[in-house]
Amino acid sequence: MFSITEVRADMQADNSRFAAEMRELTKKEGIYLINLMASPGAGKTSVICRILDALLPKYRIGVLEADMDDDVDSRTVLSHGAEVVQLHTGTSCHMDAKMTLEGINMLKKPLPDIVILENVGNLVCPAEFDVGADMRLMILSVPEGDDKPLKYPLMFTVSDRMIINKIDTAPVFDFDIARCEKNVRALNPDIEIFPVSAKTGEGIEALVCSLYKTVEKTLAKKRNGAENR
Amino acid sequence: MFSITEVRADMQADNSRFAAEMRELTKKEGIYLINLMASPGAGKTSVICRILDALLPKYRIGVLEADMDDDVDSRTVLSHGAEVVQLHTGTSCHMDAKMTLEGINMLKKPLPDIVILENVGNLVCPAEFDVGADMRLMILSVPEGDDKPLKYPLMFTVSDRMIINKIDTAPVFDFDIARCEKNVRALNPDIEIFPVSAKTGEGIEALVCSLYKTVEKTLAKKRNGAENR
Repeated sequence: MFSITEVRADMQADNSRFAAEMRELTKKEGIYLINLMASPGAGKTSVICRILDALLPKYRIGVLEADMDDDVDSRTVLSHGAEVVQLHTGTSCHMDAKMTLEGINMLKKPLPDIVILENVGNLVCPAEFDVGADMRLMILSVPEGDDKPLKYPLMFTVSDRMIINKIDTAPVFDFDIARCEKNVRALNPDIEIFPVSAKTGEGIEALVCSLYKTVEKTLAKKRNGAENR
Repeated sequence: MFSITEVRADMQADNSRFAAEMRELTKKEGIYLINLMASPGAGKTSVICRILDALLPKYRIGVLEADMDDDVDSRTVLSHGAEVVQLHTGTSCHMDAKMTLEGINMLKKPLPDIVILENVGNLVCPAEFDVGADMRLMILSVPEGDDKPLKYPLMFTVSDRMIINKIDTAPVFDFDIARCEKNVRALNPDIEIFPVSAKTGEGIEALVCSLYKTVEKTLAKKRNGAENR
């Protein structure tokens, strides 16, 4: 077990360096970067499409689609009007800061206002890698169960916001939203939680309004900073 | 990216050594080892409980519960009559052969006939680590979507059997079992696929009968081998 720990320490030091480089880049270029993380099938692409439909009239948005293989999601996101870069991670189970930098640099110049990284579907490893994002946004979907914060605490601890997706299926599953929220807040008292259904649209307005306010504020700050240099 | 690849090669060489040690152990002791892998919330624990209810009258069964944290599943499995060892993997997103060996050696002696490793909930990383099991058994659940074989091909490629769980929820999701099976067989023509609902019990009998036949045959071979030494 010792060797694994050592290896990870090296990887994390490298990663922190690239995450700092990412923060410099997004500050200089005035970009808001969202790292979207969730298990396979939790609804990352559907949530992104809802965000695109709401915010594309106001912002240019780029999406980095990270998958081990395939480009199903890229085609979906493209059809909603985003600029898309498909990243194949091969055997890697997460995106790190260096891979994300490579992805951002493949987007058309001038870079978009918002970049959404759709991370590899995995509730575990992506939580360990800071990609230098402005927001870590996670999704838990109702069919996964309300006990997941107990079993995979890191993801719930490091995220700034959490979406509970597929609430339209709550009657089919024994998912208690209040219990889930309580478990999450025990790990992360400041997290903002948004129950939504990307399918029916329920709860999407509250999510998108909140994202809009945060993006607007952060971009104003970044862009003022850049002008005052 | 170079350094990651190198690291993984080292890890894999170590792992293969421990996987070989595991094969020796299970042959010598006459144990059938199942490595059960799936995303968080796909129903690993519920499937194990169904297997326990059906096969405990015939076999002694031990379960290794691998979680990053918590012991919810251990308590559930214990209540169905299995012997249980709880393994906390900390930040590790998968079980490797060494960790699995440590788990098996914590079970009561004489060791059980069947050991089920409930791997960490993750459709990605566990697929990369051979733990020396007799069977790699994976679960995909209906809410995750029928496109997952395209996005996470390795897990579907390395598994011997696949359970499609939560088929009782098929009407709620756009999950096409035939399309899913076609995508899986393109990667892995020999895989056996079992559509089930661990909740309602649908399809469980076919799954359990098939497991029983395979376990019976393999254990007879291992135990004859041991006697003839």
